[in-house]
Amino acid sequence: MVLKIALLAGDGVGPEVLAQAVKCLKAVEETFNHHFIFKEAPVGAIAMDKKGVPLPDSTLRLCQESDAVLFGAIGDPKYDNDPDAKVRPEQGLLQLRKELGLFANIRPVLSHPTLLDKSPLKKRVIKGTDFVIYRELTGGIYFGEKKSNPEGTVASDLCEYSEDEISRIAHLAFKAAKGRKKKLTLVDKANVLESSRLWRKVVTRIGESYPEVTLNFLFVDNAAMQIILNPKQFDVILTENMFGDIISDEGSVIGGSIGLLASASVGEENALFEPIHGSYPQATGKDIANPIASILSAAMLLEHFGLAEEAMAVKMAVDKSLRKGVVTPDLRENSQYGTNQVGDFIAHNI
Amino acid sequence: MVLKIALLAGDGVGPEVLAQAVKCLKAVEETFNHHFIFKEAPVGAIAMDKKGVPLPDSTLRLCQESDAVLFGAIGDPKYDNDPDAKVRPEQGLLQLRKELGLFANIRPVLSHPTLLDKSPLKKRVIKGTDFVIYRELTGGIYFGEKKSNPEGTVASDLCEYSEDEISRIAHLAFKAAKGRKKKLTLVDKANVLESSRLWRKVVTRIGESYPEVTLNFLFVDNAAMQIILNPKQFDVILTENMFGDIISDEGSVIGGSIGLLASASVGEENALFEPIHGSYPQATGKDIANPIASILSAAMLLEHFGLAEEAMAVKMAVDKSLRKGVVTPDLRENSQYGTNQVGDFIAHNI
Ligand SMILES: CC(C)[C@H](C(=O)O)[C@@H](O)C(=O)O
Ligand SMILES: CC(C)[C@H](C(=O)O)[C@@H](O)C(=O)O
Repeated sequence: MVLKIALLAGDGVGPEVLAQAVKCLKAVEETFNHHFIFKEAPVGAIAMDKKGVPLPDSTLRLCQESDAVLFGAIGDPKYDNDPDAKVRPEQGLLQLRKELGLFANIRPVLSHPTLLDKSPLKKRVIKGTDFVIYRELTGGIYFGEKKSNPEGTVASDLCEYSEDEISRIAHLAFKAAKGRKKKLTLVDKANVLESSRLWRKVVTRIGESYPEVTLNFLFVDNAAMQIILNPKQFDVILTENMFGDIISDEGSVIGGSIGLLASASVGEENALFEPIHGSYPQATGKDIANPIASILSAAMLLEHFGLAEEAMAVKMAVDKSLRKGVVTPDLRENSQYGTNQVGDFIAHNI
Repeated sequence: MVLKIALLAGDGVGPEVLAQAVKCLKAVEETFNHHFIFKEAPVGAIAMDKKGVPLPDSTLRLCQESDAVLFGAIGDPKYDNDPDAKVRPEQGLLQLRKELGLFANIRPVLSHPTLLDKSPLKKRVIKGTDFVIYRELTGGIYFGEKKSNPEGTVASDLCEYSEDEISRIAHLAFKAAKGRKKKLTLVDKANVLESSRLWRKVVTRIGESYPEVTLNFLFVDNAAMQIILNPKQFDVILTENMFGDIISDEGSVIGGSIGLLASASVGEENALFEPIHGSYPQATGKDIANPIASILSAAMLLEHFGLAEEAMAVKMAVDKSLRKGVVTPDLRENSQYGTNQVGDFIAHNI
């Protein structure tokens, strides 16, 4: 298969971890005889420094012309604490999601057997957890109208959803549930929000076309508890943008390390794959960042294009690194392995 | 001291648990020679059934004329799954908060030594946790304009904040931090939301008047992780309405049981005290609901009026019930004690 892959390394540890994912994709290319065409482009704080904007036109164009985007990380503390800043690195990512129409963010949450001890949650609570979050990614309060009065004393954000925005991701989520444990949980705040009531109405209606899937509802405050109290109850969670941001980061602690978690953001025509950890500025350049999340996001990319065997080969190699303890220090105290060595080990085992 | 206390038992287990809190307040009355005047009024689903509205005028008037409100619980499943319902029991509570001007919801989060095993979180993670959440309660997306188009295909909620709304709760939170571990964490989403940037600006400015308090910022998605990863890092958390709803419920799992958690909602002129658990319809009428959260909300009421010794007496009696195992079955499997007996035991020990 020939695939054009845009590489957007971004900020902080982004470039370091992305380099390991690329190593693994190159190993897949050789072993399975594919042809991946990699092209790099700047995004985020680094693009602001170089080109004045977090998402240069040329970067967007490259992404549009590619089959998929492999993303590193975004954000730099130097832009964080200025409430009056007009442009922020994060806008690059938000704009990219919007422009590429990446309306669904998909995050698997799994408890990994070798990492049960790393989680702050008790073993009996998390063992066997296996669910996936479908977060709406191009609507809601993230993209609604933002206002503030000239005096700067009042500010607002609009959370708006249309039936179409809800229904396209709902179909994806129901289809996913159909191929899994056949349970879909809609997380909303329908006892307070008008937009949540629309979600409930549309999702209920769509559910009728998926009679084999059991649909249930959970208020987001309750969901925030249930994810910690009993994560095994979930199969597919569907939710809007802001709630998805919160509960998917919350869910990330189940796995024992945020350094392992990948996500896919998909649309009609394009798809972007990224680790869920951020730019982790404290670790930048130290060769200590965990590359596994980035490598697993490359595996999700392969899966997305139907390369199941290839994706499995990557996941097995990751598994081996975990079992053999060839991991960065976040997973094993005093580990001598750096980002690069872990990447080499995994690529070598594909 | 003479105090007029409005009793709003509400729905589900509300009446059962509230009755135990009243028992305890009566014990305080006798032991410490106070005079509490209790008056009951309907709210929630039960008020809808009786009077057609979740917050009858007479109930609101009673609350306004009282020094404080002791609240049970609200919500009934029969009103939950109708997205077209025009009135919902929860509106009674929201309207009450708004009408009484209860702009700050205060929720202590503590790990109780006898309950470390009940928490889904590991002992080493939660032991020694002691923080308090200040959640803005009468603004934001809960009360912003709600719209939907006539075809019912688009719906929206507005999240709006003004400087005044932010500053009055910020002052409360800074004062609380000053009397505690001198750390205040503002939870927001300033990298995306205009309203969050206003929060950051106003809170930063107010922080200058509290130089002894260290102020830091956390994005809500990160906060949702940190609360589970390392809850001991927190002292006072300040946040807006919707984020506060989510993270305070999330934080509730730390204590090992939601059945223990009380909250105070305060304004300039009035205050309301309630357990954070809901109406828990499955348990209604079975004498199994844990009355401790309701009893501890009565203790918060006493504290609010400067009755520190009295509040301590209630808390010590609760402590005794926990240590002696005189608790409902949610805290000790096969416990033979019911809601009433636990209430009696605690009241008796005041
Ligand atoms: C960086 C930020 C804007 C982004 C978001 O909130 O969507 C991130 O937290 C994420 O979840 O991908
Ligand atoms: C019942 C509901 C409207 C309410 C809220 O969301 O504020 C509840 O969850 C709470 O936290 O007190």
